[in-house]
Amino acid sequence: MRKLEVVMSPALLPYYKVAGKSVVVIDILRATSSMCVAFKNGVEKILPVSSPEECRIFKDFDFVIAAEKDAIKVDGFDLGNSPFDFDNYLLDGKSVAMATTNGTKALKYAQEHGAKNIVIGSFLNLTQVSNWIKSVDDDIILLCAGWKDKVNLEDTLFAGAVCDNLQHDLTIDCDSALSAKLLYQANKDNLEDLVRMSSHAKRFQLLHLQTDDIKYCLQIDFAPVLPILKGVYLVNDAK
Amino acid sequence: MRKLEVVMSPALLPYYKVAGKSVVVIDILRATSSMCVAFKNGVEKILPVSSPEECRIFKDFDFVIAAEKDAIKVDGFDLGNSPFDFDNYLLDGKSVAMATTNGTKALKYAQEHGAKNIVIGSFLNLTQVSNWIKSVDDDIILLCAGWKDKVNLEDTLFAGAVCDNLQHDLTIDCDSALSAKLLYQANKDNLEDLVRMSSHAKRFQLLHLQTDDIKYCLQIDFAPVLPILKGVYLVNDAK
Repeated sequence: MRKLEVVMSPALLPYYKVAGKSVVVIDILRATSSMCVAFKNGVEKILPVSSPEECRIFKDFDFVIAAEKDAIKVDGFDLGNSPFDFDNYLLDGKSVAMATTNGTKALKYAQEHGAKNIVIGSFLNLTQVSNWIKSVDDDIILLCAGWKDKVNLEDTLFAGAVCDNLQHDLTIDCDSALSAKLLYQANKDNLEDLVRMSSHAKRFQLLHLQTDDIKYCLQIDFAPVLPILKGVYLVNDAK
Repeated sequence: MRKLEVVMSPALLPYYKVAGKSVVVIDILRATSSMCVAFKNGVEKILPVSSPEECRIFKDFDFVIAAEKDAIKVDGFDLGNSPFDFDNYLLDGKSVAMATTNGTKALKYAQEHGAKNIVIGSFLNLTQVSNWIKSVDDDIILLCAGWKDKVNLEDTLFAGAVCDNLQHDLTIDCDSALSAKLLYQANKDNLEDLVRMSSHAKRFQLLHLQTDDIKYCLQIDFAPVLPILKGVYLVNDAK
């Protein structure tokens, strides 16, 4: 049976064999949630870039540019990293270049480590991601973007939700996956309260950001899209 | 209030500020459990060393030498890493030099990162460790040794048990601590079954090692000792 592993932080990825496996990148608050919302609103493609500086260049090439640094929209950008920024019908047909503190970095890191396929996961497309995993032949790594290389709760919970969905289809082959699954199973009826206790949520409060982002990002299957990396772009491959 | 953080793998330690904090090193299966059993049996001091090669030298200086590599006792050593090896009254008054795959490495790593105090934690001395944490003035890091830099279940569960004990005395300041606490709370009546599902337990089975080690290492407060690093040696500082 195929293997399903969870990597709780990008800093742990070097200890896993990545080459030839498919990787689901997870950054619930908020990069991968926002990407799903963008595709739900008809965005044609997303270019993940490593830094706001690099991202800014693409304004000249008719991209909508989005950048966040430490949870705050960077000055001079069209969008930040809140899913509300991306829930806009005017984005239909547009191309977006996007830089975030953790999410786009995790994606680049998976690429550098030789991932075969890279897809984007969030609670907003949980079923799509689970079905996609069932449909491929590869071993799977669920890569949590975390917060500056530390483990975070919301990414771990989502990884646990995927493990819970797929526990009869794939072998759960590492203790991180087992821990994530157990954590999700014990708390699945209580996700919002839990995530509000997380360090990320506290950072939000500190920054006076709208904490509605949390509620928004926990809406299971709200954006049934499947962002997958094709060349340098993420595109929606939902069937 | 003082901070209580959990680091789920030594590979994540560089992302935490360690200098000036006290660190509890955790390697439930089996280094830190075996250290506790050794002190329970009257061992005078333990010298943690990085490799079996280095450990072997101390045979010439009247140390009992213990070394494990990938869960198996290394040829030519007095002891391996099973707590049963250390549960022997003949060890009373002896000095032990000890090298293990994960536990002694994690300890050295905490030292290199500038930890103020280093103590040894296991289910066997849970209350002693919790009380010691209450008695000092420092911020605390619970450092899980993991398995070859990956997260493991049993170390996370023990970290969660400590967080559960101390949640009203210290601030739980990171999502790893929150996750560990929630995982422990949801499964505390079921620890043995859970740990038997872990990757480490499966490795034990593969190696035909005695899986009674698992049952042994989950006996809460069986060895009420407090191994603490003084200079290069661990000594028992239980009051």
